[in-house]
Amino acid sequence: MFTDELLKATGNIWSGYLKQDFVKELGNGALAEEKFRFYMVQDYLYLLQYAKVFALGVVKANDEETMRYFASMVHETLDDEMNIHKTYMARLGITPEELTTTKTAFANQSYTSYMLDVSQRGDILDVLVAVLSCAWSYEMIGAELAKIPNSKEHPFYGEWIVGYTSEGYVNSVVGLKEKVNALVEEVSPARKDALTEMFVNCCKFEREFWNMSYTMDMGE
Amino acid sequence: MFTDELLKATGNIWSGYLKQDFVKELGNGALAEEKFRFYMVQDYLYLLQYAKVFALGVVKANDEETMRYFASMVHETLDDEMNIHKTYMARLGITPEELTTTKTAFANQSYTSYMLDVSQRGDILDVLVAVLSCAWSYEMIGAELAKIPNSKEHPFYGEWIVGYTSEGYVNSVVGLKEKVNALVEEVSPARKDALTEMFVNCCKFEREFWNMSYTMDMGE
Amino acid sequence: MFTDELLKATGNIWSGYLKQDFVKELGNGALAEEKFRFYMVQDYLYLLQYAKVFALGVVKANDEETMRYFASMVHETLDDEMNIHKTYMARLGITPEELTTTKTAFANQSYTSYMLDVSQRGDILDVLVAVLSCAWSYEMIGAELAKIPNSKEHPFYGEWIVGYTSEGYVNSVVGLKEKVNALVEEVSPARKDALTEMFVNCCKFEREFWNMSYTMDMGE
Amino acid sequence: MFTDELLKATGNIWSGYLKQDFVKELGNGALAEEKFRFYMVQDYLYLLQYAKVFALGVVKANDEETMRYFASMVHETLDDEMNIHKTYMARLGITPEELTTTKTAFANQSYTSYMLDVSQRGDILDVLVAVLSCAWSYEMIGAELAKIPNSKEHPFYGEWIVGYTSEGYVNSVVGLKEKVNALVEEVSPARKDALTEMFVNCCKFEREFWNMSYTMDMGE
Repeated sequence: MFTDELLKATGNIWSGYLKQDFVKELGNGALAEEKFRFYMVQDYLYLLQYAKVFALGVVKANDEETMRYFASMVHETLDDEMNIHKTYMARLGITPEELTTTKTAFANQSYTSYMLDVSQRGDILDVLVAVLSCAWSYEMIGAELAKIPNSKEHPFYGEWIVGYTSEGYVNSVVGLKEKVNALVEEVSPARKDALTEMFVNCCKFEREFWNMSYTMDMGE
Repeated sequence: MFTDELLKATGNIWSGYLKQDFVKELGNGALAEEKFRFYMVQDYLYLLQYAKVFALGVVKANDEETMRYFASMVHETLDDEMNIHKTYMARLGITPEELTTTKTAFANQSYTSYMLDVSQRGDILDVLVAVLSCAWSYEMIGAELAKIPNSKEHPFYGEWIVGYTSEGYVNSVVGLKEKVNALVEEVSPARKDALTEMFVNCCKFEREFWNMSYTMDMGE
Repeated sequence: MFTDELLKATGNIWSGYLKQDFVKELGNGALAEEKFRFYMVQDYLYLLQYAKVFALGVVKANDEETMRYFASMVHETLDDEMNIHKTYMARLGITPEELTTTKTAFANQSYTSYMLDVSQRGDILDVLVAVLSCAWSYEMIGAELAKIPNSKEHPFYGEWIVGYTSEGYVNSVVGLKEKVNALVEEVSPARKDALTEMFVNCCKFEREFWNMSYTMDMGE
Repeated sequence: MFTDELLKATGNIWSGYLKQDFVKELGNGALAEEKFRFYMVQDYLYLLQYAKVFALGVVKANDEETMRYFASMVHETLDDEMNIHKTYMARLGITPEELTTTKTAFANQSYTSYMLDVSQRGDILDVLVAVLSCAWSYEMIGAELAKIPNSKEHPFYGEWIVGYTSEGYVNSVVGLKEKVNALVEEVSPARKDALTEMFVNCCKFEREFWNMSYTMDMGE
């Protein structure tokens, strides 16, 4: 499977996520609330851009089914996934005004611009691989953190783990990987290398996103 | 209102729609079914591309509200508006296979490529003005045809008129015009001229689309 | 060769160019000067957009050599090919003001928007195939018209034929075809079909461009 | 002048360039050759993408003069500016093979993707502001380093300083700023804010590029 090759190409980056402070403390419940608050706001801004990448999938799709798939992912991102955020925001006292006035942190901006750049210049496979790293790593992290006893019952962070281990979320990642593996069969080895490099870059951006969240670094 | 100026700039094109054979015969019920069938299939292919233009609105939007607006228009196009088509398709015996194997007629292709070109190269106002001509002219045509006694009760074409005079459809066009008028206040006269020229071009494409449908011209 | 298949797919469109009034009369010298004047101005506006398609080649290129190729084609279009136009413009009394104030005819606009749309949405092969139809058909038409006795010595239209049969021009078309044939080897049959459909569409736009020029039709 | 406001908005980032180790040691000649070598290769890869941003200027231009301006900047980047690099490459023994096989460092990739993203999604002003930070900061750095006694005569780094203080280079930056200031007069305050934020982001990417070069950090 091409998606297996993608993981291999990330080297230690993929397994390293679980050792990053933010992820570890999210799992054991030790994460400072202000760090999570910072993350929530930035992730909200991230998801708006992430939805744009899915919208580019609608634009680049070559058939109706793929168009509808991406249209549903735009909807899923803006409505379902962002609902998890909205619950937390209510709890954390994050107002809509705060969301519109908070600047996008530098590492966050770099990540979403990268996905938007490759998706605008590229084709439907570029779009799919660009969004894969975020979707898949969250599923993996959710599954790993869920193994920690009582992590899903944590009064504050449990809901995050529950959300990213939900059947709906997991299935959507499975669907994404299937699409990648199906479409990649038609492309040349050089094209596969380029897609792999793109996946690795996205995985680095994920790593930096966790770092940014833990250090609450706006990149000023 | 800028949208009033847009209409003026179209000269006779706008009022001419009502004199085009396809539109006239749709209103008085004299339209040959094969012409309507041709139109339905091509309009289905058109709407898929039209949804891509709305998806570009998601990409080009500068705020969450505008993103959500365009995301809802993608949904409305792919689901609500295409539902009218699906009812007719069932009646006309148009199968999903026919839709995927029918080629896009030349005039149809020219129109959607124009909208996609200006929307890709341009900003959110380009996207809005690109989609306006189709949406608004259908509302106008619907309203005019509805004035013809019993037109909405026509066993075959009545449903088309009912669909494009529905409250939901009319409101969506009102919303579109409001967005154009609001955003255009910030732009220069030269930019307004360029937008006007684009609107006029789209109106010409609409005219050619009706011609193409009446003559069932694939443009081979 | 894939480029041979492209020609076959155009059916009669390709051979039909030589029977179009504008082309015939350009060859036998009977073309009314006002028609040629109309064509010259519109072709000037066309070439500006054509150069944009080549610029998209720079953006979509995956290696330095291809980038440099497209950068040189931007230069060739804006400088070398437009020089032929500038000589005629001086003779025909077409001022720079006239060029900036003349509107792009509808058929002309449709053609260039199509090329820009597919090139923005697509990859480097889309760009190459989008520009191929114009470049190659001019080479073919030039070569055919050059066979007419004394056509190259015609006091007015000879220069056009000389320009499009020049070694530089012919070589640049050969280079373009080689690039298409080399890159197409890596793509799937479905992709080839899509490229072929695009080439056929461009050939139709070429046909309409000649029609538009002969009838001096702005498409109002 | 809007460009003055842009500088102010960068806070300490702009003046901070002169305090970055790479820049300081480039000026006083103490820079380790291996760091400069790393920089040269990455900057070469950068310039290829930078030329793509200029090519997007050709695509987004609304008039012939602006098209020609950007076409000349593509040429200037690929030919003139890269010639400085080629001289150094010969001296440093950097082969064409090394250039094609060296990966783009993460910070480098992030920067060029950002410029390409905003330029693809935006208009001609976005393109101009995206390229401004690099062009202008090099001119400023060149001018400041040139004040250091004998810096232009340094056997290795002198040529770099000479290149970026050359009349041709300085004039091209002046031209760029003039274009920005002229076009920005027509836009709204909200648009100016967005452009300012983009400029600040690019300045941060410049800062990270110098850091990356000094630490020879591939971002693995």
